[in-house]
Amino acid sequence: MFACTGYAATAADAPLAPFGFERRDTGPEDVRIDILFCGVCHSDLHQARNEWRNTIYPCVPGHEIVGRVAETGSSVTRFRTGDLVGVGCLVDSCRTCQSCRDGFEQYCENGFVGTYNGQDRHGRGITFGGYSRAIVVDQAFVLKVPDNLDPAAVAPLLCAGITTYSPLRHWKVGPGQRVGIVGLGGLGHMGVKFARAFGAEVVLFTTSASKIEDGLRLGAHQVVLSRDPDAMARETGRFDFILDAVAANHDINAYLNLLKRDGTLVQVGAPEDPLPVSVFGLLMKRRSFAGSLIGGIPETQEMLNFCGEHGITADTEMIRMDQIEAAYERMLRSDVKYRFVIDMATLPAVA
Amino acid sequence: MFACTGYAATAADAPLAPFGFERRDTGPEDVRIDILFCGVCHSDLHQARNEWRNTIYPCVPGHEIVGRVAETGSSVTRFRTGDLVGVGCLVDSCRTCQSCRDGFEQYCENGFVGTYNGQDRHGRGITFGGYSRAIVVDQAFVLKVPDNLDPAAVAPLLCAGITTYSPLRHWKVGPGQRVGIVGLGGLGHMGVKFARAFGAEVVLFTTSASKIEDGLRLGAHQVVLSRDPDAMARETGRFDFILDAVAANHDINAYLNLLKRDGTLVQVGAPEDPLPVSVFGLLMKRRSFAGSLIGGIPETQEMLNFCGEHGITADTEMIRMDQIEAAYERMLRSDVKYRFVIDMATLPAVA
Repeated sequence: MFACTGYAATAADAPLAPFGFERRDTGPEDVRIDILFCGVCHSDLHQARNEWRNTIYPCVPGHEIVGRVAETGSSVTRFRTGDLVGVGCLVDSCRTCQSCRDGFEQYCENGFVGTYNGQDRHGRGITFGGYSRAIVVDQAFVLKVPDNLDPAAVAPLLCAGITTYSPLRHWKVGPGQRVGIVGLGGLGHMGVKFARAFGAEVVLFTTSASKIEDGLRLGAHQVVLSRDPDAMARETGRFDFILDAVAANHDINAYLNLLKRDGTLVQVGAPEDPLPVSVFGLLMKRRSFAGSLIGGIPETQEMLNFCGEHGITADTEMIRMDQIEAAYERMLRSDVKYRFVIDMATLPAVA
Repeated sequence: MFACTGYAATAADAPLAPFGFERRDTGPEDVRIDILFCGVCHSDLHQARNEWRNTIYPCVPGHEIVGRVAETGSSVTRFRTGDLVGVGCLVDSCRTCQSCRDGFEQYCENGFVGTYNGQDRHGRGITFGGYSRAIVVDQAFVLKVPDNLDPAAVAPLLCAGITTYSPLRHWKVGPGQRVGIVGLGGLGHMGVKFARAFGAEVVLFTTSASKIEDGLRLGAHQVVLSRDPDAMARETGRFDFILDAVAANHDINAYLNLLKRDGTLVQVGAPEDPLPVSVFGLLMKRRSFAGSLIGGIPETQEMLNFCGEHGITADTEMIRMDQIEAAYERMLRSDVKYRFVIDMATLPAVA
């Protein structure tokens, strides 16, 4: 074991604070990573504040991790010391179920091991995430990060990126399609970039007029203000695919009605309450309402490679580790363009 | 014009009664059909009683029509006098939109013309349905009925049959798949027959133990009582596809949770109120919730041909025309195995 430092929540109502803990030594299959940057996901806040009622304290959040390999285990061949690598939402899974064998570890039928607040499968306790100096991860869950991208701006790709890339790929979004992205936040801004890169005609839906300019800059061909009933009515039945990145409760039927025959709306945000769905709206045009969860390891690597080839990264605001609580408050007000990233060099050397 | 007799509702609270009206003469593209049998669909009751708040009175219901060609227009080549034919829920559509050109007239972007309570596209007023002596329909919306099937038992195929056939085909249900059918009524019993005929492993979900035996007889490999929480729990994550034929409000999440990763639940019944859908349940396994509406003309013909080849018809109870109100009351109690069919020979000669 080795001593590691990080930032942890110790209770639902306690602000995150410096925290000393131990990480396991590098086993044969392990990669030890010195963390350079960690993105700040809304899930971090949910978990730190026990909003999902399953947090085990102390909790070290963070699952948008970019760093450099510090040490490799004896069986590790794909990584070398100094390599730029990433770790996303998963650090392990059963590896034997059909979903794992298909490379969809995020849908592991025995439950994947989250990068934080996860139960290690080998009795090594609860996992601690990327708000820390270093992390030790099985090589099967470590991603290669292209060298030509800004590593700080790569970090959010590990969750916000893959969460939008995966459904756009799975439902084969591409040229000739009209695609809607609902909500311009951490996820939505990546959805706009990917849908545009895949060749679709991209329409951003946002509640705020202040985001029109940014939406267009990020790649949308058109921005629709979703609070304008006339503008929404004009879009009825015009979309092949809609990616809805809004995690708050909202009227999903307003968007389902924008789909063409055989169109699909995929929800990647997870509203707390069930969403009332008008069955009539679905069956009059054979529409589908679906959900999608992050992505598996092979697809996450594919996404990183795609980003390297196309020069795609997240739009970020860099913060110091001790600014995390202020960042959470700004995130709650959607006051971030479009993802906070923690510069892990700002972590105190000793907790 | 020629004088026709039928049964019509003249108001939401008036029982159906004999009704005299006129049908158009057989135009160049028309087929005049002497109606032998007409199935009784739940929609007939909804429309007769103005439960959808759009009924135009007098209303002659009926869209599961089987009869014999009595006369053909000068441009009609596909049908001859004496042919056994069918008419389903549609008698016209715009024929120019993408859905019509694709053979999906049920999704006509300009609105299909229903067999009853529909607005004729050529200024000929409101359409009258199959609770009548005869009907005149454009040849493009007339189906050939295989001669080897009981024509009375074919009638329900025109709505209940195609409504279940179409989604099972569209979502490619077949061998190696575990398929659930929810509800054993007019639609559900056809769903069981088709899913079995397509080679799937078929599981029927029903609330009533009295339907277990029938479910198995109709083709289900297994029947699950949906009110048994343990039985439902055992089916979690085990289905590739579920066809939900329940038109009443019900807990759709209980069935969505039975889907495997990438599974789809298709609703063909149309509950009045929006159904609350747990987004979490969708995204944890990339599940889809979809709707499907009857079928287009090419697919309806394909279904009839399939039924001819495989000897598939509906299970029916024959009634006289003057028993229609009693049949509606029994239908409301789900007391029918599994579709009423009106013997149109029992229609009075003069209204």
